[in-house]
Amino acid sequence: MADAAPSAPVIILNAPQLAENIGAVARVMANFGLADLRLVNPRDGWPQERAWALASGAEWPLNAARVFDTVAEAIADLQLVFATTARPRELTLPVLTPRAAASELLQAAQRGERIGLLFGGERAGLETSDIALCQGIVTIPIDPRFRSLNLGQAVAINAYEWRATLLDAAPPNFRPGPGPATGEALLGLYEHLERELETAGFFHPPEKTPNMIQNLRSALGKARFTDQEVRTLRGVITALSRGRGKVLEKIARKKGEAGG
Amino acid sequence: MADAAPSAPVIILNAPQLAENIGAVARVMANFGLADLRLVNPRDGWPQERAWALASGAEWPLNAARVFDTVAEAIADLQLVFATTARPRELTLPVLTPRAAASELLQAAQRGERIGLLFGGERAGLETSDIALCQGIVTIPIDPRFRSLNLGQAVAINAYEWRATLLDAAPPNFRPGPGPATGEALLGLYEHLERELETAGFFHPPEKTPNMIQNLRSALGKARFTDQEVRTLRGVITALSRGRGKVLEKIARKKGEAGG
Repeated sequence: MADAAPSAPVIILNAPQLAENIGAVARVMANFGLADLRLVNPRDGWPQERAWALASGAEWPLNAARVFDTVAEAIADLQLVFATTARPRELTLPVLTPRAAASELLQAAQRGERIGLLFGGERAGLETSDIALCQGIVTIPIDPRFRSLNLGQAVAINAYEWRATLLDAAPPNFRPGPGPATGEALLGLYEHLERELETAGFFHPPEKTPNMIQNLRSALGKARFTDQEVRTLRGVITALSRGRGKVLEKIARKKGEAGG
Repeated sequence: MADAAPSAPVIILNAPQLAENIGAVARVMANFGLADLRLVNPRDGWPQERAWALASGAEWPLNAARVFDTVAEAIADLQLVFATTARPRELTLPVLTPRAAASELLQAAQRGERIGLLFGGERAGLETSDIALCQGIVTIPIDPRFRSLNLGQAVAINAYEWRATLLDAAPPNFRPGPGPATGEALLGLYEHLERELETAGFFHPPEKTPNMIQNLRSALGKARFTDQEVRTLRGVITALSRGRGKVLEKIARKKGEAGG
């Protein structure tokens, strides 16, 4: 099916210990559009209620999860699998960042291949013999001073990279916002402001006026105001300078009352 | 200090509910080389033992965590802050992927700026008024069919992108010139403007005031004003609203002469 979306990677957890982590993995899979979860020898058996409790409603990866005895069986139908591990191995497999891995996985999926990501359990990680069944190693760029990455987080980062790559790293498709105002609209704003500042006696000494104007314009220009923002700011200038009228009247009245 | 490594982003959690999530955030911060954690109104107070229990030994971000009453206070010393939120807002702030955000944050840090990432609490997320204090929005490319992303995962993905970007980064490219003003200086500017606008009767109808304020703040915030520009703009506000003494006196005198 040439037009179908490429199939997302299968997530394989080898010897996961905590049902809570399996639930967290299901949740993050749902966050990033993944659905196929496979468990190799979960320590406490399967199913486990606490996984559902921790999935925050992302039940479908759990409901459909399949259990296997070995990694080999769990990946038997897959054509490209990367093993996620923090440690470099003696194997000659390529070592990829999550980003590069997502890119290779996507290319494979676009060719119609079935793809997967293999994760080790909380304590033991992955055996070299299991890694050797994979086509590459994904290493998350952890700070070597604190390597203890939670299983759910490791899946999250790879699932995120999958989806970010799938979306072609473009920002999420929001309705396009209003573009910046034209130079003409900006100049109207600047000149309005400068007229009012001139009236208010802001520009002095006079020989510095051109510089002051340039600095104001370039400061405001950095904001790349929209047309609506330009209108709002012109309202602000009008309000402030009319407000001055009110203040002035009050002052004048007071001075008048004081017999000035 | 030209040779120092760029400072990692501060992580600000607004109204976090579960101590477990705060612990998970600390752990993932340690995984990716972040250390400065700030809490705005943690629901159950602070410190909480369960945060330490869930941090798997990543205690230093928790030990050094600081608590604030408002987002404004928590970001007062920062110069570039992105708010992480899944929903597009009415604000005109730029919307960035985590990758693009990490790149902008790194460039700012390489210029010596203090940077941060703001996250909302588990239930409520972020108020628009808090987002309006930031310079951009980071949106994780979540599957719209399952948007419920765990707080720890949201921090993990952004922290991972920070470190991946840092490790990929070319040597810092120092740009001369003053950096942007702090959140505190910006807030001072905003509040000065809003006081004068209030006096001038700009905000009406009253129920729209919060929205008008948010829109003004986010419009101006895009400019990333320097300290000097903030001072200039405060002079502009003062001039527009009060005029300079001489002008006032002149006008007052005229009004007096006119029999006002």
